[in-house]
Amino acid sequence: MSSTQVGIDLGGTAAKSGRITHTGEILAEKTIDPGFADGPERVLDRLADLFRELGGGDALGIGVPGLLDRERGIVLTSPNLPGFSGLDVKSGLARRTGLPPERVHVENDANAAAVGELWLGAGRGERDALVVTLGTGIGGGLILNGQLHAGEGLGGEIGHVVVDPRGPRCGCGKLGCVEALSSATAARRRALAAGLPAEHPGDLVLLAQRARDGHAPERELMREIGRDLGRGLGPALCLLDLRLYIFGGGFSGALDTLEAGIREGIEERSFGGRAASVRLLRATLGPSAGWIGAARVAIAAG
Amino acid sequence: MSSTQVGIDLGGTAAKSGRITHTGEILAEKTIDPGFADGPERVLDRLADLFRELGGGDALGIGVPGLLDRERGIVLTSPNLPGFSGLDVKSGLARRTGLPPERVHVENDANAAAVGELWLGAGRGERDALVVTLGTGIGGGLILNGQLHAGEGLGGEIGHVVVDPRGPRCGCGKLGCVEALSSATAARRRALAAGLPAEHPGDLVLLAQRARDGHAPERELMREIGRDLGRGLGPALCLLDLRLYIFGGGFSGALDTLEAGIREGIEERSFGGRAASVRLLRATLGPSAGWIGAARVAIAAG
Repeated sequence: MSSTQVGIDLGGTAAKSGRITHTGEILAEKTIDPGFADGPERVLDRLADLFRELGGGDALGIGVPGLLDRERGIVLTSPNLPGFSGLDVKSGLARRTGLPPERVHVENDANAAAVGELWLGAGRGERDALVVTLGTGIGGGLILNGQLHAGEGLGGEIGHVVVDPRGPRCGCGKLGCVEALSSATAARRRALAAGLPAEHPGDLVLLAQRARDGHAPERELMREIGRDLGRGLGPALCLLDLRLYIFGGGFSGALDTLEAGIREGIEERSFGGRAASVRLLRATLGPSAGWIGAARVAIAAG
Repeated sequence: MSSTQVGIDLGGTAAKSGRITHTGEILAEKTIDPGFADGPERVLDRLADLFRELGGGDALGIGVPGLLDRERGIVLTSPNLPGFSGLDVKSGLARRTGLPPERVHVENDANAAAVGELWLGAGRGERDALVVTLGTGIGGGLILNGQLHAGEGLGGEIGHVVVDPRGPRCGCGKLGCVEALSSATAARRRALAAGLPAEHPGDLVLLAQRARDGHAPERELMREIGRDLGRGLGPALCLLDLRLYIFGGGFSGALDTLEAGIREGIEERSFGGRAASVRLLRATLGPSAGWIGAARVAIAAG
């Protein structure tokens, strides 16, 4: 008999969720406002209601941004989820849903999205890939031998590989991280510095379109941003001999305009002429990758 | 009943070998001159003789420097083994020893050494580690979840992670690779540039001793070399959240003088305050790591 799981991708402004069978058939999807203003206990109440409204399931997986104790299902720190630092999400949701605690799984959101893309998205059937989320920041999830590889919890953090020790300061405090050079935020800063209009996040879509249409300043800008991203991926090729990179997140819509630069950057920071064999794919699950991956994590662990 | 394996670590000037049980009991060890001047077929003859002289075994593992087709047991390119590029080592040794081909395993030498150190050396009982060989160059082998992770064959190549894109040129053609900054060769070059005596490889031992004895120029030199090495390890922490690094090779005798710098470099190129939790160990199997690991690879595959 087919088992069903519920996955939730909990962000600061939305909880995306769905119910799915272990063979990947999506039975329901729903997005709610988690309402963080009412405090973390009320958020957990709403997530448990969501679980029931979707029809319930044999297990529940939840992806959250931040640093976790994944074993115990406790959020250690989460700057984006008010009140969640220190929260025992596993016990809280188990109690509210009636699931045994071992059927509730808490995972980092970027890792969950990576699992989702490898299961049903761009990486379907693949064993090894780095899934890079290009948004206001840059996150990542690493899959090796078909398994999520998160080390003690912070694996796949491609965003903080240093590309240029003399580069701009990153939010993490270091200089020249990939995130400080190639995130959507960094792209807008670089566009403005180049005299191109990029006051609003949506402007990046227009800049990418102009690059596509052959306008030189936009094309060169995207190439440079891509090159720094590729330089950040070089160590993954050196350390892991990894050939598949999947890009999700809002800025991944510009992947076609970044690709030439990404390949140059990888070539520059790896060796053995492997850059040509590297595959760069755009994620295909969009904003559903997180909840689908969270559900998959629950299946894998169950 | 206990099965026994023979491992060989084939280098340009010596073939180190031994016979070992699957539980790690060393039954015999022997080192010979492979005699590359007589051509690759004669080298394989000698290695088969060596297998017999050691007492034979249920399987044979051999580590070779270079790029391999590990599945088929063919050396693709090996600058250090004259005549071996393109050689079908698996078939050649199977025919000569009478072993079925599926019992002969060919592995990259740095990978084999990593497997050896995790099995019986400094990484005994560990699941995840990067084993770094500090010699005239810098090689590496990556173990994740207790398994060698070589990707399509070139994994663990920490030596070619770029630390400083404005740094000195590496043998691979790029600028500022770890190998160009922190190998024994680079260390001697940097010592000479600092006005310290380092004409001969053995001089590094004296420089390390003077650093240990508190002489400021040597101490600062070792710290700087260590710092660049640590900067190269930073991406491994970002990508893999890897906390254990084991150092072998001739220059690893200076690890105690490099350590402060290594930790500074890791801290500088990672985030989350994890540098303090990183363990830096010196390899304990010395020149036997390669053949022991090669034998272990044969056991694992058998």
